[in-house]
Amino acid sequence: MDVADEVVIAEAVASLFLPHLRPPLLALCFSGTSMNPKDFRSLAHQMVDWMADYVEQAGDHPVIPDTQPGDIRAQLPSSAPQEAEPFAQIFADFQRTVIPGMTHWNHPGWFAYFPANHSPPSILAEMLTATLGAQCMSWQTSPAATELEQVVLDWLRQMLGLSESWVGSIQDTASSATLVALLSAREQATQHQYGMKGAAADNADRLVVYASTEAHSSIDKGVKLAGYGLNQLRSIPTDENFAMDPNALEAAIEEDLAAGLQPACVIACVGTTSSTGLDPLEAIGALCKKHNIWLHIDAAYAGSAAILPEHQYILDGVEYADSFVFNPHKWLFTNFDCSAYYVRDVDTLLRTFRSDPEYLKTVYDPQVVNFRDWGIPLGRRFRALKLWFVLRSYGVKGLQEHIRNHITWAQELGEWVEASLNFELLAPVPLGLVCLRFHPPSVQDEEALNALNEALLAKVNQDPRFHLTHTKLRGRYTLRVSIGQLYTTRQHVVELWNLLQTTADQL
Amino acid sequence: MDVADEVVIAEAVASLFLPHLRPPLLALCFSGTSMNPKDFRSLAHQMVDWMADYVEQAGDHPVIPDTQPGDIRAQLPSSAPQEAEPFAQIFADFQRTVIPGMTHWNHPGWFAYFPANHSPPSILAEMLTATLGAQCMSWQTSPAATELEQVVLDWLRQMLGLSESWVGSIQDTASSATLVALLSAREQATQHQYGMKGAAADNADRLVVYASTEAHSSIDKGVKLAGYGLNQLRSIPTDENFAMDPNALEAAIEEDLAAGLQPACVIACVGTTSSTGLDPLEAIGALCKKHNIWLHIDAAYAGSAAILPEHQYILDGVEYADSFVFNPHKWLFTNFDCSAYYVRDVDTLLRTFRSDPEYLKTVYDPQVVNFRDWGIPLGRRFRALKLWFVLRSYGVKGLQEHIRNHITWAQELGEWVEASLNFELLAPVPLGLVCLRFHPPSVQDEEALNALNEALLAKVNQDPRFHLTHTKLRGRYTLRVSIGQLYTTRQHVVELWNLLQTTADQL
Repeated sequence: MDVADEVVIAEAVASLFLPHLRPPLLALCFSGTSMNPKDFRSLAHQMVDWMADYVEQAGDHPVIPDTQPGDIRAQLPSSAPQEAEPFAQIFADFQRTVIPGMTHWNHPGWFAYFPANHSPPSILAEMLTATLGAQCMSWQTSPAATELEQVVLDWLRQMLGLSESWVGSIQDTASSATLVALLSAREQATQHQYGMKGAAADNADRLVVYASTEAHSSIDKGVKLAGYGLNQLRSIPTDENFAMDPNALEAAIEEDLAAGLQPACVIACVGTTSSTGLDPLEAIGALCKKHNIWLHIDAAYAGSAAILPEHQYILDGVEYADSFVFNPHKWLFTNFDCSAYYVRDVDTLLRTFRSDPEYLKTVYDPQVVNFRDWGIPLGRRFRALKLWFVLRSYGVKGLQEHIRNHITWAQELGEWVEASLNFELLAPVPLGLVCLRFHPPSVQDEEALNALNEALLAKVNQDPRFHLTHTKLRGRYTLRVSIGQLYTTRQHVVELWNLLQTTADQL
Repeated sequence: MDVADEVVIAEAVASLFLPHLRPPLLALCFSGTSMNPKDFRSLAHQMVDWMADYVEQAGDHPVIPDTQPGDIRAQLPSSAPQEAEPFAQIFADFQRTVIPGMTHWNHPGWFAYFPANHSPPSILAEMLTATLGAQCMSWQTSPAATELEQVVLDWLRQMLGLSESWVGSIQDTASSATLVALLSAREQATQHQYGMKGAAADNADRLVVYASTEAHSSIDKGVKLAGYGLNQLRSIPTDENFAMDPNALEAAIEEDLAAGLQPACVIACVGTTSSTGLDPLEAIGALCKKHNIWLHIDAAYAGSAAILPEHQYILDGVEYADSFVFNPHKWLFTNFDCSAYYVRDVDTLLRTFRSDPEYLKTVYDPQVVNFRDWGIPLGRRFRALKLWFVLRSYGVKGLQEHIRNHITWAQELGEWVEASLNFELLAPVPLGLVCLRFHPPSVQDEEALNALNEALLAKVNQDPRFHLTHTKLRGRYTLRVSIGQLYTTRQHVVELWNLLQTTADQL
């Protein structure tokens, strides 16, 4: 039988089936597994019962597992199985091996780092996103995903009080978005020569970036990766509130200009990681405008607070900026990853990131936004859906209520610390983070205080109900109490404060 | 009442509740929404029924929606709601507005681009991942996620036949991973001076990158972003099979060396996007070794085929390379995003990407892997879980069966095209992609053939059952039939071939 005959027969066979392929289709996706076609529905229902239990019992796990390096690995086979394994076995291993080794970020006793919240509506959306499995690189590869992203990013823009001149997209993280900003600034400063000529571009070795000493580590990393070179990053001192000193910034810019260098980018932080310091955007922005410097604002954590009218002041001066990032996955109850990146000049963004190979061209390209050209990765998940579900499920007022509570509780804790004889605040509490240390009157040596607080943190973290992390502020070992987890109540904060006091007493 | 009194009272209140906070906790995560605490379970079950229906009816939607730019946006309000909306309303809008505007990547008639597969076990894992909501930047922020990632990446390494010298991590996409490779190569070529001094580093303006004319657009983009400058990318010609010509590569390297330039990186493609061309790794690798050039292998699509013993040859020579990427989210039935990036020299990777601020330090750092230092973003999702579920649910043999079928069907289609009088193959069919065009004997003009095939593609894509995309090979407009979707059967391929023939006849 030759190929042509085979085709005829195959077509005849196909005509018997098409377009009614449903039963063989479903079976096919299980082919090779030990599942049968009805299993997906029943297994997914089983997952849901586990998920709902997990949400209900969020506080029952120890926040941090009692796991030593290598413990999990030792429980797992060293090679993939050749034959399909029953799902019941896999799920049992998930419960037995993975769960006891997880850090539970959605625990009510989560006071570490900054929050990374899930929420019920966000989880529901992630279920649908995973099922669609769409790759949203271009408008045509997911029109609804692209347009929904445009719409919800515009909703967020309004909620934060940004002007209509801002256009948003979803990136994975603020660190990536900041790298996108640094690359855009590099291209703007060199009239897009850097991308073409690299280090041979005019002034390539003269570009300078400015950020405060309190800026996030992703800025140092971004300055390295984007090719400025870490030596070209000026660390600007901060004031007593850990906010960038604009006079020091001005002096640094003037000095660099006098030396024949080219100030290319200033990164201002709204809510620094160590202490939620708030850089003065108005003063910084005026300097950037005067010297035509790209201003990027990193409000990764704090940006969400700007949806509260009483906290929108933290963004005063944002209209001077060229780019702005904040993370709904931190404090807006939308599952990681979901970072909102706004720019004003889309053309510079596109000239920096667009590529247009034949195999990605579509007839719609002249009319549409292709978000693949708005950042580093080509492929993109459908991340707008969870944001849409969250914004609608809570409404602006519901979101405000949660964030307002967190800030209120943080400020209460701040007052308790200030009223205490044995503890002190090491930074103001403008938002949901309280920076404190144990400081009994009998101990004045800074080294001794650092050792004492390091010991206090280790002891407090032995309590399975809570997890805190630390930083150093002006060399002082600082306990960070970050209040922003969806399940955290005022009682948890009270109980943590109680634990801090009783543990310190025993040191 | 002063603050201290308030603390006493609050503590008394808290002691009544703790540690039995379960009921108020669950209520809290719904506070501000119109859901009640029991709703998460019932809503998630409702999602599952929709999801299982969607999987069962994968073939019932048109692959590409009948949507014009702006259609979706026009159906959505211009601002976020102030008040919480009922979930029933949100879910109804999802079904009414989003679904009819989606491109269905998991449709059995998906022959476009390359596949981006979901699969039942992968969806189940994503449900759990979303519920845990863990941020896996460091070992301590998710020990099980870190160690599971180490384990499954080692399983994959073995499945592909890579030696034990390779160490893997999960990145979002191959485009990001390729940028990571280019940045690592830049740092290696300048002894880590570029990251510190930028364009002022010795030889910064002399670094050269090499890839074939068929290399993916992310390589051009990465060369721009990493600061080499696009002018420093040499496009090496390919042979008749669209594989890089190693003699041309050698000549280009020699020429650059003679001009005092520094060859820094060669990117070899295993399975080019346009036609699955296979660059000859042995010959390229020997050149890289001779000249001490970083060799990165981009096997984004094709890498998965190396789990078949009969196709492992595509990676012959991989042991010359410094870095290697392939995407389980393309052809290994693991939800996007999941890109596996392997390196040999972890120290160079860490020196390029590590940052170590005080607030991220943990006591375990000297003993553990912190994957935040293995790439660009700080934050990381728990992506190893879905890979673990997939590898175990199908087993190696189950995965092999699916990929083997796809390749077999592609090669059959290739034979039918070759046997046809009116169609021709424009590239070999080593894997799951068939590059073809309509070429009736009566038409010889290349421009006319291009126009004819562009028209054919547009017409075929009007059929709601199928979606194809195109490329250009040596200037020839080429229809790409990519066979790799989990629900695709041989009958779909037969039916598509039928449609191509009947549609062409009507042109």
